[in-house]
Amino acid sequence: MKEQLKIILGIDPGYGSCGYGIIKKDDKFPDVLKWGCIKTTPKTGEPQDRLLVIFQKIEELIINYGPTSMSIEKLFFSRNTTTALQVSEAKGVILLAAAKHQIPVFEYTPKQVKLAITGSGNADKKQMQMMITRILHLTEIPTPDDAADGLSLALCHMNWIRDLR
Amino acid sequence: MKEQLKIILGIDPGYGSCGYGIIKKDDKFPDVLKWGCIKTTPKTGEPQDRLLVIFQKIEELIINYGPTSMSIEKLFFSRNTTTALQVSEAKGVILLAAAKHQIPVFEYTPKQVKLAITGSGNADKKQMQMMITRILHLTEIPTPDDAADGLSLALCHMNWIRDLR
Repeated sequence: MKEQLKIILGIDPGYGSCGYGIIKKDDKFPDVLKWGCIKTTPKTGEPQDRLLVIFQKIEELIINYGPTSMSIEKLFFSRNTTTALQVSEAKGVILLAAAKHQIPVFEYTPKQVKLAITGSGNADKKQMQMMITRILHLTEIPTPDDAADGLSLALCHMNWIRDLR
Repeated sequence: MKEQLKIILGIDPGYGSCGYGIIKKDDKFPDVLKWGCIKTTPKTGEPQDRLLVIFQKIEELIINYGPTSMSIEKLFFSRNTTTALQVSEAKGVILLAAAKHQIPVFEYTPKQVKLAITGSGNADKKQMQMMITRILHLTEIPTPDDAADGLSLALCHMNWIRDLR
């Protein structure tokens, strides 16, 4: 039986830099459709204007690539308190875009992502990038780092749904 | 010279309970247009669905009452870390609604709000509610508490712009 087409939008949420990666899976090998990074700076405008840019870009990706699910990093409190609150605001508008387009959302901790991709919850950035490049048959390591993180979130969810079958 | 009409939407951001109050000012006394509370529970749906409800209700208030500015509480890290991240997600979608409708946003700390309304940064809830009721010529204390907090945010911004003249 042919597996149903799955398109996963992986997101590493951020306020100044929000990484994303989109993979498609309809047979044995996953295909990369797109990866990149949404950047906002104080020059973008007031905080709410930066959130609007993030929301609009995520909506654009949803409309253009039709993801069937969203995979996003589960946040914990970091030491940098201001950053954690800002990243949560950004995550709020990303989740809103998913809700608006009725896309189910799955959250994974960094440890779960590392485990799903390298088999070790303690893998470092370099190991992760090597494995992503290999699994996705890319010719070079995806950049910037945040985009690679977006791809790894998408891959993590793909592995998770594969393990469920 | 007649002062320009000002309609202020005050918001006490929350995930399960988001209080709001709308006041209008075109002469000496402020008029209350509306106050209330947006409630969401796990029954509302997934976290992203709850954010969508908050966003839609805030948009509805913006469309129905045409606020000229939004006044919202500045958040700090609390001990309850999960709550702080969830409230920030809710705040993200509230700010997004403001950005979408090009409404300028002003943030105030709880201390600034207390100071603006009672003259003391250490006022308790009861003092605050008494002062709100008096300033707005209400016949009874506005409920629930979160709605009163929304009104106090709106009043705080009104006082702030008055002091600037």
